[in-house]
Amino acid sequence: MTVCLFGGSIAAVPTTTRVPQEERSRAMRQRLLDATVGLLIEKGYAGTSTTLVSQRAGVSRGAQLHHFPTKVQLVLAAVEHLREQRTAVLAEAIEDLPRGKKRIRAVLTILGDHFAGPVFAAALELWVAARTDDALHEAVAAYEQRLGRETHRLTVEVLGADESEPGVRELVQATLDLCRGLGLANTLADDGFRRRKILDRWAVVLEEGLR
Amino acid sequence: MTVCLFGGSIAAVPTTTRVPQEERSRAMRQRLLDATVGLLIEKGYAGTSTTLVSQRAGVSRGAQLHHFPTKVQLVLAAVEHLREQRTAVLAEAIEDLPRGKKRIRAVLTILGDHFAGPVFAAALELWVAARTDDALHEAVAAYEQRLGRETHRLTVEVLGADESEPGVRELVQATLDLCRGLGLANTLADDGFRRRKILDRWAVVLEEGLR
Repeated sequence: MTVCLFGGSIAAVPTTTRVPQEERSRAMRQRLLDATVGLLIEKGYAGTSTTLVSQRAGVSRGAQLHHFPTKVQLVLAAVEHLREQRTAVLAEAIEDLPRGKKRIRAVLTILGDHFAGPVFAAALELWVAARTDDALHEAVAAYEQRLGRETHRLTVEVLGADESEPGVRELVQATLDLCRGLGLANTLADDGFRRRKILDRWAVVLEEGLR
Repeated sequence: MTVCLFGGSIAAVPTTTRVPQEERSRAMRQRLLDATVGLLIEKGYAGTSTTLVSQRAGVSRGAQLHHFPTKVQLVLAAVEHLREQRTAVLAEAIEDLPRGKKRIRAVLTILGDHFAGPVFAAALELWVAARTDDALHEAVAAYEQRLGRETHRLTVEVLGADESEPGVRELVQATLDLCRGLGLANTLADDGFRRRKILDRWAVVLEEGLR
């Protein structure tokens, strides 16, 4: 089965030379994505030039263009790359969530921290740039829609919300939109103290609304 | 009193020549601000160069620098200018708000529309650019704080909320952060249908929470 899944390993001779090449290529791709994420967070979308990315990643322009022919492909892959890294952290936090009365508040902490963190900051750069950049707009709108659906599904699941009950779906949506708004409020200064108090209150609303 | 407040009108001779000059100067300032607002909304912060502003406003570079020596001063004045224009529209909408049961939902419509509109789009450009631009950061953070306090005060007033009651202040804050999140969700595509349903649900929560 392994042979079928990963392909090509029946032919012994090319494998030994191809595997290191593939690994090098994958490592190069990772460096490009890490460099792009770093630049998006430090310098914003406008400050993330493909030249700076190749310099920071230590990758030739030719190799960079081979992996990501356009800036749009590069930045979207970078945000997805960062999100995948953070998903592992999120999954662990979700695993450790308490059961019972304290669960809703704990879920809100995870969501609040997530939207106050680097994935949101990097994504925000793309969302806002996409507002006035046609090339970026189509790709970001599609990605945002997919991501939004996935985040909603995950939130329903961890909250144990029953969306067949009237008004529950809208409360879950409101929770995510609130966290998005809190994330935005956190971009200029640490808004953690205010956020915690608002989420304390929101937990009471959710406990009543999801009952 | 008028003489004291506006100054200088006692001396008759210079007034007749100075007033048109002052008017021309004020009109020029308005054109610069309108051009900046238009560019921020159409092309974003990175696309709003001071050269483009002077071209669009039909104002010489020298005159522009006289009014606004830096891009930071120009863009902040432009967002404030737009906000002042919209405040008049908001004040009318507030004047027309129903009393009684339908008031809260009507307030949420005003807030939701406001954060889905041009003031938010223009301000968002500054907030996000300020995240990675030191020169802009200080000015925007101070402006945002002042604006945030003012919006909060106005919302408390139109909702008739009693913030001495426990949890009420956080509910009002959550309302504004929710609307900010909904505004962000509206930047890539018209999110009005989803927003209305979420605000319908939020009105129920607010009615219970503010009672």
